[in-house]
Formats: sequence, C-alpha cells, structure tokens
Amino acid sequence: MNSHMAYPAISRVVVFGGTHGNEMSGVTLAKHWQKDLSELQRKTFTAEPCLANPHAVEKCVRYIDQDLNRCFSKELLCSPVSESDPYEVKRAREIYQKYGSGSSSSDFTFDLHNTTSNMGATLLRCSKDDFLSMHLANYLQNSTGDQCMPCYNFLIDIQEKDNVYLQNIGKHSLTLELGPQPQGVVRADVLSRMRELVNRGLDFIDLFNQGKEFPSFEMDVYRVLSRVLYPQDSTGDIRAVIHPDLQNKDYVPLKPGDPIFKTFSGEDMFYEGETIVYPTFIDEAAYYEKKVAFILTEKIHCNVPALKLEHQAGHLGTPK
Amino acid sequence: MNSHMAYPAISRVVVFGGTHGNEMSGVTLAKHWQKDLSELQRKTFTAEPCLANPHAVEKCVRYIDQDLNRCFSKELLCSPVSESDPYEVKRAREIYQKYGSGSSSSDFTFDLHNTTSNMGATLLRCSKDDFLSMHLANYLQNSTGDQCMPCYNFLIDIQEKDNVYLQNIGKHSLTLELGPQPQGVVRADVLSRMRELVNRGLDFIDLFNQGKEFPSFEMDVYRVLSRVLYPQDSTGDIRAVIHPDLQNKDYVPLKPGDPIFKTFSGEDMFYEGETIVYPTFIDEAAYYEKKVAFILTEKIHCNVPALKLEHQAGHLGTPK
Repeated sequence: MNSHMAYPAISRVVVFGGTHGNEMSGVTLAKHWQKDLSELQRKTFTAEPCLANPHAVEKCVRYIDQDLNRCFSKELLCSPVSESDPYEVKRAREIYQKYGSGSSSSDFTFDLHNTTSNMGATLLRCSKDDFLSMHLANYLQNSTGDQCMPCYNFLIDIQEKDNVYLQNIGKHSLTLELGPQPQGVVRADVLSRMRELVNRGLDFIDLFNQGKEFPSFEMDVYRVLSRVLYPQDSTGDIRAVIHPDLQNKDYVPLKPGDPIFKTFSGEDMFYEGETIVYPTFIDEAAYYEKKVAFILTEKIHCNVPALKLEHQAGHLGTPK
Repeated sequence: MNSHMAYPAISRVVVFGGTHGNEMSGVTLAKHWQKDLSELQRKTFTAEPCLANPHAVEKCVRYIDQDLNRCFSKELLCSPVSESDPYEVKRAREIYQKYGSGSSSSDFTFDLHNTTSNMGATLLRCSKDDFLSMHLANYLQNSTGDQCMPCYNFLIDIQEKDNVYLQNIGKHSLTLELGPQPQGVVRADVLSRMRELVNRGLDFIDLFNQGKEFPSFEMDVYRVLSRVLYPQDSTGDIRAVIHPDLQNKDYVPLKPGDPIFKTFSGEDMFYEGETIVYPTFIDEAAYYEKKVAFILTEKIHCNVPALKLEHQAGHLGTPK
C-alpha cells in the first residue's frame, strides 16, 4: 500500500500582493520584488510577483469598484466582456488569462493580505483537499522562527464552483493573512514576518521539487462556521462595539455566555451559542461595510497523508 | 494686580466628528449624539454634534477630494464660490457659515480624531494663546480616570492667518487625537475614552460658566518642530519602514544616533539631529500619501495664568 499523496513538480509560482490595495505588507513586498526578483528565485522553478490591484494600490483603498478577491468565480471569469464591467472584474480576467488558464497556468499561488484583527500569521486555504498546500502550511508552522506571531491554519471550506477568491486560479495556493496591522500602514515586524513566510514557502516548494518526501502529520484547522453581525439600530448604524473582553481574542475559545458586544448605552451582550467556538477577524476594518463583527470557526483536527513528487511521463523514477 | 485671564461665558459648543471620514470614534459618537442629544447637555450652554464630512463618512475614507481639515484658511473660506470647487472646500464653507461666523458663532469647538499611531489621548491646539482651552486640557489631564491612555498636550504653533484646520472656526477649541486605532475600526476602549474626555470637557465649560475660578498651573507641551519623510527610491516608493525600536514610541525621547528606519535590504538608519526630540504620529496611515514617517516635537514648559469668567456688560459682578 502506498499512502503517499503525489503531485507533479511545481514549475511556476506567482506571489500576489495588493489584491486589496490598502493591505500594505503585500503591496510593499510585491513592489520591492518587481524591482529585484532575486529573493524569489530557487533552483527548480520560476517565481514572479504580481501587484494584483494596481489602481487600488495607487489610491490606497481596498478596491475601486468591488472587491477583487470576490471576482474569481468561473462565472465572472468566463462571462461575456463588456466595457462597463467593474474595474476589478476586468482585472480578475486579466489575472486569470495571465496566470490561471492554459499551459502556462500557475502551479502555486501565494496571496498576501493583512488584517486589522489580531490574527497573527493566518494560513488561509479555500480547499480542504489541497494536501500540498497543507504540507507547505505545516512546513511554515514548524520552520519559521518568530514565535511572537503564531501561525494558524484557517479553512474556508467551500466547493470549487463556489470559490470566488484569487487563490481559485492556482493549482495549489495559500493566502497569508497577517495582523494586526492598520490599513495603509507598513509595520516592520509584520513585513519581515510575511517576507520570511514567503521565503520559507518557496524553500518548501524547492525541496518538494527536488524529490524530498514529507511524512504524514496531524494539524489543527480553524474551519469557518458563520459570520456574526454588529447589532444595528433602525437606521442601520451599528449600536454596539466589540466587547473589551473579546477585543484581540482571535482564535481564543468563546464559550456560551461570554460577552461579545457592548452597546453605546453600556449594556453587555453575550454569545448565545451552545458550543465552544473560535472567533476570528474580530473588528476587521474591511468587514464593517457588511456589518460583520467577527467570523466564527470551529477547531477541527486533520490527518494529512505523506507527500511526494509525482514522477511524470518521460521522467525517470518509480511509478506512484 | 489681577493675574487672571478672563473670557466671556461659553454659550454655544459644537462637537465635530467625522472631519476625517474613516476615524471612527468621532464618527460613531457624532452619529450617536445626533440621535440622542441628552448626553451633551449642561445647564449653562447648548452643545450640538456635527458630522463634519458626511460623504467621506459614508465611503469610510479620509476625504473625497481633499483633506477637509486643511480647508479652513480664511482665503479658501472667503474666496469666490464655484460649482467646480472640491467637495471639502464647499463643505468647509457650509461649516463656517453655520458655526464660524456671525453672532451665532461657536464659542467652543471640539474636533474628534483618531490616529493609527500610539498617541494615547492627544489634546491638540493650534493656538498658544488660548488659555481657556489650556485650562480645559489641564482639567482633562487631572480629572479623567483611565490611566491606560495617557493625555498629552500637543501644539501646532502657527499664526491665525496660517491656520487651515477646522478648529480655526471656534473662538476656543480643542482637537482630540486618540490612538492607536486603525482607520475604519471602532474600538470600545478608544470610544469610551473619547466619550469620557468630551463629557469632562463639557463639565469644565459648565463650571467655568458658573463662575468657578481656576488657579494658575504649569504644563508640559509638545510643540511641532518638523516632519521626517520616509527614505524613497528613485521611483518615489518608500524603501524603508519605521525601525522596530521606534515603533509605538510616540512621545518617547529620541536621542542623536537612535535608529529610526530599517531599509528593505536590512540596514538601520539613525537620527542625525543634535538634540533630544519627541517623535509623534509615528507611522500614521494618513501621512503615507505625503511620505511623512513621523513628526518631531520639542517638549516645552508653560506657565498658564489663572482663569475666570469675564462679567460682561449688563451682567452683575465685579469688573475684571
């Protein structure tokens, strides 16, 4: 019995920054690497940076017309083109043409984000079946030295047909969400942590391509359950804020009866669920427009099979 | 010899929030008070909230066309009106008409701001001669309980003719700059601190109006010296970030030779001035567009004379 997962070698890697134009670690790194590619190079593949939403970067806003990172549905990417399409829909198609389709399609995609929430280094995936990116995430958790910003595995467990995120275009992909960092700000600690994570991720891909086998392992994953909205008044304005006891407590267990909001008149409001959950993206600035206060996750435990290179036709080596 | 400063009673107070549309403590409080004025009322004056830049608030951006808080020069306010004027220039004139000119002009103006920098509760003035607002600031420093967010006096020492800030329209005024808070986010601790400061400020005005005399005192003030720009490459992009040793160190003495930046290639850059200074607004998101990394201040010591109510013609009481 062969219990390894096997994938073909990774030949093309793309590192996206500025998918949201005001999340500055990725913006800064993508711009820097566009001027000097050397840091991204490894022996066994090519890697290139891409500033995903340059107009939003220029204006230092999340998006111009609509959220680019919700434009990568197959439906939008393949719908008839119109001059009046929102800027980000056009830009998503450009990105898809360049990196997501045909023979030159990206094998591995990094997408670099920041959050105003206290999310540490969050390794976000939208596919529970991409074992290569799970191994990469595990490698990052075990190989990066900076313990002041812990790594978390985060899963938006959706089917491929429902995937609207940029990471939908890569065969394999990982989104880095680092915080807390205000929009529009570059903090040295967050920047260096993101840079280290990308570099260690590229090292992992290089090792994988060279035939290194990675043993099976177990990992904790925070899987999205639901969104919690701010309490609102009759005009739609929020009428409460995140409770001081919940502020910054991303990934900390939330128990039934714990306070979650404080209203402007000073009352506490409590979590009324029946199970322990793990709040994430608490007080994320970008989610206010949808009145989303935080995102609830459950912690699940995964067994990840061992990983090795799939030797392709024409290559020497044993069949898998 | 009478060493008191005397001013007429304060009859009209305006509390501005949302002068910058993404600084959410003031936005939230102004909206809240517009729906329920009761909290702002005192015996001896009327107070009203004003959402200064409602279009920017709606879009959760600093400004639409240009910074409203740089539009209150006498030149702009009094220049011929044109349909093509930037939105904020039009809005500044509206605010000036309603609150800044004629017999119903505001006697005291609060302007509520947030910063992404670690500025605590900064009490900002643009006039070194407004002793009433200095007494109010001193009252806030001595009467508000929350020691987790220290109060600092901050002075932009400019002549009235050079004053382009909203606080230019009030006879007396104080700007509150509370941080750190990301743009677009409402944090409970910052919100309650700002609310407390405004309420204590209104209490002070009420006491002053009732004839309470306030003794002379001494205060430390951080007076603006100069702006320090980010190092930039030949394309105008920043090529360094705030040094980790300087991050969050607003109001902490900066000595000659201390590190201030770390370049993307890992080099430290140092403060080359010859005197101890006090950096402020370190890494403020809104200043990136002007490449401003922080603002240097010097700490000065002020003697503030005693304060009392000026009894006006027709009132009973002793002449000053």
